[in-house]
Amino acid sequence: MEKQKVIVLLSGGMDSVTALYDSYNKYEVLCGLSFDYGSKHNYKELPFARLHCDKLNIEHKIIDLKFMNEHFSSTLLQSGGDIPEGHYEAENMKATVVPFRNGIMLAIAAGLGESTGAAGLVIAAHSGDHAIYPDCREDFLSSMSDAIKHGTYDNIKILRPFVHMSKTDIAIRGNELGIDFSKTWSCYKGGDIHCGKCGTCVERIEAFEEAGLVDLTNYMNT
Amino acid sequence: MEKQKVIVLLSGGMDSVTALYDSYNKYEVLCGLSFDYGSKHNYKELPFARLHCDKLNIEHKIIDLKFMNEHFSSTLLQSGGDIPEGHYEAENMKATVVPFRNGIMLAIAAGLGESTGAAGLVIAAHSGDHAIYPDCREDFLSSMSDAIKHGTYDNIKILRPFVHMSKTDIAIRGNELGIDFSKTWSCYKGGDIHCGKCGTCVERIEAFEEAGLVDLTNYMNT
Repeated sequence: MEKQKVIVLLSGGMDSVTALYDSYNKYEVLCGLSFDYGSKHNYKELPFARLHCDKLNIEHKIIDLKFMNEHFSSTLLQSGGDIPEGHYEAENMKATVVPFRNGIMLAIAAGLGESTGAAGLVIAAHSGDHAIYPDCREDFLSSMSDAIKHGTYDNIKILRPFVHMSKTDIAIRGNELGIDFSKTWSCYKGGDIHCGKCGTCVERIEAFEEAGLVDLTNYMNT
Repeated sequence: MEKQKVIVLLSGGMDSVTALYDSYNKYEVLCGLSFDYGSKHNYKELPFARLHCDKLNIEHKIIDLKFMNEHFSSTLLQSGGDIPEGHYEAENMKATVVPFRNGIMLAIAAGLGESTGAAGLVIAAHSGDHAIYPDCREDFLSSMSDAIKHGTYDNIKILRPFVHMSKTDIAIRGNELGIDFSKTWSCYKGGDIHCGKCGTCVERIEAFEEAGLVDLTNYMNT
């Protein structure tokens, strides 16, 4: 049977890189789709996104969304203030929300998908994202999938394989898939090495610990 | 009572310019929001979008989405083939669909809206758009509105004042609002003057005729 054609949203972090390898096994991946939206850590993530696409011989596209840095409010952006430190699910992490980022990225993926014959769009949102990031929750993904169904001719679906999984589950799954996680980037601060203190670094450290995996990431402050 | 704050999606055509004036009467308009996505007629539309914002002393923002021209398939784009001629609602007009364009534009407007305190996003989709453009239909707008509600903190709504009106109704409404429609652009071909034969020119001509209004547009072939 012919494999379903999909586009994988790919930041270059642990979750979306795992989604890329997972999709590579299940589907025909038309491309890994990345966005350069002016975050502090885009320049660290995107080379890893490219590296894994190259390894799997999958086309990698980068879409320029730098207007987000100019017009949107978030500490994640170069134009925003300091990245907060603490737990990934803590209230103060709301400052890192880039408003409706996944809505924008999925909408663009849908347009690209209809232009290239995709049947599905894979997004790596997981259960740990739900506390702070509304555009990672199942009720958002479900209504966005409806919007894409109604707003296109091709009935493209949003596939969210990790939406009920934790980051620990993803680390385990990625390890099974043979992924070298040292070639992924999480830290929101986007320094030379991972800071070890921002929400996403704390979450990354926890995931490796809980999964019982060796964490080869270099952290600054641990 | 304080007026609701809205962003108006503004192409510079008859419909969205009417939505701008209509919104100006009802709401506090934070900005007119235009997109330069590489269509053949963007360069004709955008100056009119700017002109009407200037006239009403409303901020005008233009977001660069030229990646659509590079990656998407549509005759409306500079990268696409010839614009078909005929009736706006005819089957051959499907070639002018830019996949999920309104989904992308509304998603960006939602992110900008959450960054700037908007309560609503105004889009001028009307009943004549429904035949060919799925991302102008009420079922799309309704589910996209749900997606934005779930995917943001601010519960921003999509306002679609013309979704059950015809273009003729819009022409009448715009005339009541004192709009100079000669300062709007429709033609998909984007030549020096309106071609008079493409779908949106045919629709424009019909709307003025049915509304019983003088049409001051210069057409090439009528």
